[in-house]
Amino acid sequence: MEFASYISGFTDGEGTFSVSFSQCLRLKTRIEARPSFSISQHKRSKEILLKIKKHFGVGRIRFCKRDQNYKYEVRSINDLTKIIIPHFQKYPLFTQKKKDFEIFVDICKMMSKSLHLEASHLTEIIEKAYLMNESGKRKYSKQKLLSLVIR
Amino acid sequence: MEFASYISGFTDGEGTFSVSFSQCLRLKTRIEARPSFSISQHKRSKEILLKIKKHFGVGRIRFCKRDQNYKYEVRSINDLTKIIIPHFQKYPLFTQKKKDFEIFVDICKMMSKSLHLEASHLTEIIEKAYLMNESGKRKYSKQKLLSLVIR
Repeated sequence: MEFASYISGFTDGEGTFSVSFSQCLRLKTRIEARPSFSISQHKRSKEILLKIKKHFGVGRIRFCKRDQNYKYEVRSINDLTKIIIPHFQKYPLFTQKKKDFEIFVDICKMMSKSLHLEASHLTEIIEKAYLMNESGKRKYSKQKLLSLVIR
Repeated sequence: MEFASYISGFTDGEGTFSVSFSQCLRLKTRIEARPSFSISQHKRSKEILLKIKKHFGVGRIRFCKRDQNYKYEVRSINDLTKIIIPHFQKYPLFTQKKKDFEIFVDICKMMSKSLHLEASHLTEIIEKAYLMNESGKRKYSKQKLLSLVIR
């Protein structure tokens, strides 16, 4: 079997590409964009997350007491653009998640050029990010978040 | 990419191996055992189910209005033992679902020898099946079901 292809199948079922936002006073725009790739599993299936972490060689696993889940997570923009994104370009997704991934790639590319530090590009990133994971919960509505960006 | 490995990854996330039971007057034991392999997806990701059905060349896809999901399902014991089980033996699972699969293999093997038509083996099949999918819902409790088997 080819484990890399397995990971793409598993991610199409269980993975999430997302970009979250939080207020951050040290930034000129006051809003920080935080992309992440993650996979959650109940604690009885922790093994597969260790195996995936080992395969990629980046990211970390943490335990969430609330839902008794372990979460494998990659947040570093460098790891995302050098390792995670090329993986899913070579071993593609096939569900609706593929669209989330494509938006995620756009946003990470902009962030590796530091465009997210400028208000005009940050608002573009926010617009894109809010098209992802249609069923996901957000701390801020898009309008509220856009109103918090310092221009 | 290797699509067969992708399918195993996707199944580890989204697939289900199960054996359900129903009352059936034409059987001597009065209880029919019905094994199935299935994968459900929201209608926006129907494409991947079509791709998986095409890969295996067996099973069918049906729509469930209640949850707006499509379900790919293989129920024929012949298709399960000739196509589905050998696939997951060659391209293994890695989550807790692997244990369900192993029990499923045991039960399908017994059924291909028609052992499920004899009360003593049917009760063994029921005992095994109720160890699977710990979070799944059942129409009958195990005790109730065992009491319905005609010996």
